[in-house]
Amino acid sequence: MEPIKTILALADAYKKLPGIGPKTAERLAYATLRMSPEDRELFIQAIQDSMDKVKRCPHCGFYFEESCPLCADPSRDHHQIMVVCDSKDIIAIEKAKGYGGIYFVLDGTLSPLRNKTPESIGILRLLKEAEENGASEIILALPTDLDGETTALYIADLFAKKGIKVTRLAYGIPVGTNLEYLDNLTIAQSIRHRTDMDKGGQDNG
Amino acid sequence: MEPIKTILALADAYKKLPGIGPKTAERLAYATLRMSPEDRELFIQAIQDSMDKVKRCPHCGFYFEESCPLCADPSRDHHQIMVVCDSKDIIAIEKAKGYGGIYFVLDGTLSPLRNKTPESIGILRLLKEAEENGASEIILALPTDLDGETTALYIADLFAKKGIKVTRLAYGIPVGTNLEYLDNLTIAQSIRHRTDMDKGGQDNG
Repeated sequence: MEPIKTILALADAYKKLPGIGPKTAERLAYATLRMSPEDRELFIQAIQDSMDKVKRCPHCGFYFEESCPLCADPSRDHHQIMVVCDSKDIIAIEKAKGYGGIYFVLDGTLSPLRNKTPESIGILRLLKEAEENGASEIILALPTDLDGETTALYIADLFAKKGIKVTRLAYGIPVGTNLEYLDNLTIAQSIRHRTDMDKGGQDNG
Repeated sequence: MEPIKTILALADAYKKLPGIGPKTAERLAYATLRMSPEDRELFIQAIQDSMDKVKRCPHCGFYFEESCPLCADPSRDHHQIMVVCDSKDIIAIEKAKGYGGIYFVLDGTLSPLRNKTPESIGILRLLKEAEENGASEIILALPTDLDGETTALYIADLFAKKGIKVTRLAYGIPVGTNLEYLDNLTIAQSIRHRTDMDKGGQDNG
């Protein structure tokens, strides 16, 4: 005996989300059947709104409902562009309140295996945005895995040819972390990029 | 800057599913925005169908679209009722093809802390179903945690008073498992319930 069609369809829908395997998808499908009709109506409405109301900024790629809160803000410095891989990262950086420039969201990182090219992840659009904004600095806030590094090096190379400065967020010890729990690479990077006490954070690397 | 309303509403919907915390819910909400419109339409349709098409059998609690494939099947033995905590368990047991009776799905296990009483999880309905079907045996297939044990003992006690036999699925060594990876309780149970080689599975406990 197989689960009924609707349950299979629900599980299929959940399976399309990242990190949800077949077993979890089935569990979530049955859990959906146990949700109250009101909660299911809200769920449907939220997915519908995600199609009807949410727009993506044609410039930076951030999601908004009215107008892009970043690109449309004249108080932000349009000559600094921070490059991230995920809109969620913008929320995190904005919460830290240490940045006043604009952003650019790449659709993932370069990966020949996953068919992610400079064009498909948006690096060519980034170049165009940088030129149109007369950007003076590109700040990379990309993942620190292999594909993230490849992407960072590719962008650095591309913009160096155009004479635009490219920087990256500092590697180092997270504030409040105990050294003994840190990986070797992070410790090595924190030594290489050690800062003078009196310069308040100048790079020595 | 906060995520936009639709993303918060989507995350709220995901958070109502079991095992989905705030961080995962947020991740799934952003992932939903990246789904194709076709996939989102299918997702909405599946949730809508879960309300419009899926019914719960008033007798056993199993989900169906046309008629209950278990209770409506005259070839099944209606005098044997297997009690489970989750409709998914019925699918697993049916796949094993070793059982020909009917089922009863409890809404969870007894737990005073989570406000789960014999009435709220359906034990009183189980009693009614057993009496109406003239049941000769109740087979418990409940979780082996503390609440599952409590529920099993409660049901055994209740049906003993009515003179109806209550059994439970055998505890023991899963087929194909290496002894060294098994927990002590399972090994102890498999010794206690050891079977005679010539009886092909008779209990010795």
